[in-house]
Amino acid sequence: MKERRVTGYRVGIVGGGQLARMALAPATALGLDLTVLCRDFGESTALAWPDIMLGSPDDFDDVAAVAKRSDVVTFDHELVLADNIEKLEELGYRFAPSWRVLAVAQSKIIQRLQFELLHLPIPPYEVVHSDDGKEEIEAFGETHGWPLMVKGNRGGYDGRGVWRAETPHEAEHIVQALHERQIAAVLEAFMPLETEVAILVARNWQGEFAAYPLVETVQVDGMLSSLRAPARVRKSLHLQAVKIAREIATALEIVGLLAVEFFVTHGGLVINEIATRPHNSGHYTIEAAVTSQFEQHLRAVLDLPLGSTEMTTPHAATVNIVGSLSKSGVAEALAMPGAHLHLYGKSPRPGRKLGHVTVCAADRDDAFERAWQAARTVEGRRG
Amino acid sequence: MKERRVTGYRVGIVGGGQLARMALAPATALGLDLTVLCRDFGESTALAWPDIMLGSPDDFDDVAAVAKRSDVVTFDHELVLADNIEKLEELGYRFAPSWRVLAVAQSKIIQRLQFELLHLPIPPYEVVHSDDGKEEIEAFGETHGWPLMVKGNRGGYDGRGVWRAETPHEAEHIVQALHERQIAAVLEAFMPLETEVAILVARNWQGEFAAYPLVETVQVDGMLSSLRAPARVRKSLHLQAVKIAREIATALEIVGLLAVEFFVTHGGLVINEIATRPHNSGHYTIEAAVTSQFEQHLRAVLDLPLGSTEMTTPHAATVNIVGSLSKSGVAEALAMPGAHLHLYGKSPRPGRKLGHVTVCAADRDDAFERAWQAARTVEGRRG
Repeated sequence: MKERRVTGYRVGIVGGGQLARMALAPATALGLDLTVLCRDFGESTALAWPDIMLGSPDDFDDVAAVAKRSDVVTFDHELVLADNIEKLEELGYRFAPSWRVLAVAQSKIIQRLQFELLHLPIPPYEVVHSDDGKEEIEAFGETHGWPLMVKGNRGGYDGRGVWRAETPHEAEHIVQALHERQIAAVLEAFMPLETEVAILVARNWQGEFAAYPLVETVQVDGMLSSLRAPARVRKSLHLQAVKIAREIATALEIVGLLAVEFFVTHGGLVINEIATRPHNSGHYTIEAAVTSQFEQHLRAVLDLPLGSTEMTTPHAATVNIVGSLSKSGVAEALAMPGAHLHLYGKSPRPGRKLGHVTVCAADRDDAFERAWQAARTVEGRRG
Repeated sequence: MKERRVTGYRVGIVGGGQLARMALAPATALGLDLTVLCRDFGESTALAWPDIMLGSPDDFDDVAAVAKRSDVVTFDHELVLADNIEKLEELGYRFAPSWRVLAVAQSKIIQRLQFELLHLPIPPYEVVHSDDGKEEIEAFGETHGWPLMVKGNRGGYDGRGVWRAETPHEAEHIVQALHERQIAAVLEAFMPLETEVAILVARNWQGEFAAYPLVETVQVDGMLSSLRAPARVRKSLHLQAVKIAREIATALEIVGLLAVEFFVTHGGLVINEIATRPHNSGHYTIEAAVTSQFEQHLRAVLDLPLGSTEMTTPHAATVNIVGSLSKSGVAEALAMPGAHLHLYGKSPRPGRKLGHVTVCAADRDDAFERAWQAARTVEGRRG
């Protein structure tokens, strides 16, 4: 690989999925010297970037090789061995987020303990300590009612690792399956929610902090399906979301982006999940905010000044493209006024996120309707 | 190089400068299978894209190799051998723009003949037929006054190939120098101009046409230094510009983008130069229009529907970064609200275009002032 020192800012990214891929545009614009660790040349990011190192995010030497080429290393996803990152940090390499943050991001149990310490609102939960979970499930169900949620401590995202159990029998089945894979189970009360919202914030090494607007999200099978920005909720909820995200980012000393997903309940916001990286709920910022979440993340990890998080349009909506792609559908969708198409370079497969469409508009429903139509059209599922 | 068929749209670009580089973001977002012909791996585009073929834009086999991988081939610059493109078109490969358009774009003499045929407004001119041009220069100067412009028929862009001569002696000197390089000289009346403006339009294979707003440009040493969008000129000039650009695009059957630069004179618009590709005067569209000129060019050459050319902000200004780069200046500029930085991955050299800054704002002067400050800061020339 070549040395290229236009600005002298060098970043590594571990993992080559769509989040790293969407960071390529701002990395190019900012003239960064970027190295991406991919599993193979078919990954989303390897299809669109020349400086790829092949290797595993869980391999010490592979991550070390990226770190040696970089002033700071960040991540496309949290699924890396935090132990490796800890050792590399001890050797003097810089990671953002740090191994401490990764350890929290990777474990739903540690997250919940951390949130309790910070007195942040979370759904009632209980960690299963027995093998079959039978008694704990029954007791939890009696206290908090049915259905309840069962979550694996680690390994989950996009709805993986999260199940809704309607009966004790179902819950036991999930707990046992997790137990066989040596994953601890967490029981969580089911939240009868009005709406789900998410906030995205950024923090750099100096502690500079910036928050994007609160957005409304719709999940399907636990995976984000669509979002509308800004959220149509009362101002106090927006302030509460920023306050909570700021407390988490400050307490954990997160460097980079933090996304916090919330349930909106009668009593206010309750934390659902967090992610310490760019997030699906922030894709709209590419077209609809002064600074995209991908540029913001790069600025933050390089300890550059954060950019403005203001929206550049009254309303924006993003709808994910899932499962299938149609070549003629792409052409048809591009004829739809203002439909911004983003494909991730992935081969179609049922349930797989393949891209998204964002539409900016003066009217909230108009933005959503057009983004939805365009996404379905790209999938070849319209009409 | 790998086969990658996510959408099945395959584009080749001949030339790897900053225009091809800025096409990478929309090519990635649209999931295109893109191949770029670069002279070496240090070129702007090769620094940010994996599918590079090394070769010369003037070599038949090199251009043919790109064409074989592509549904359509387009250009980063016009400086390619049109003869090669003609032969490859005869073999069935598709180029946009075509060799006919390239032949016009490459020759100031053919351009002027074409514009005369279309009855379009151009400055008075005369082609020098004698070796020293002595008599022609004197006669032209007597009729049209001094100074006058001397232009080389071919090889010029960004102010290269264009000279302002104050005296017959100066003009003869330039004509003779061109003659020694076997380049025909064109004498052109000097335009006492109020303002320079430019229009950017797109046309696809089906003849669909779209025009961006008229913008005001400032040239320094013949190279675009800054622009403001939209231009503060009367509506009739905007309409005249669109009409002229449409006539050129239609008459030449241009596929892709066409930029037309005009002098604003007391009598209305007079054509200065044209370019049949994305253009420096359209860089503002990345942030300030619904569809960037780079995405629009890709849509047009692939015969996809054209995108909206509407601006997303009341005012935008772009200022070029020329000659020098400062690492701390980059950080300082990023702290300036709304400064969108684009670097081209080029090593600094006096007079070399290294990047640009765009600022969107509600106020025209505010946008320009901030873009200007940011660009000077990145150059390390502020204060």
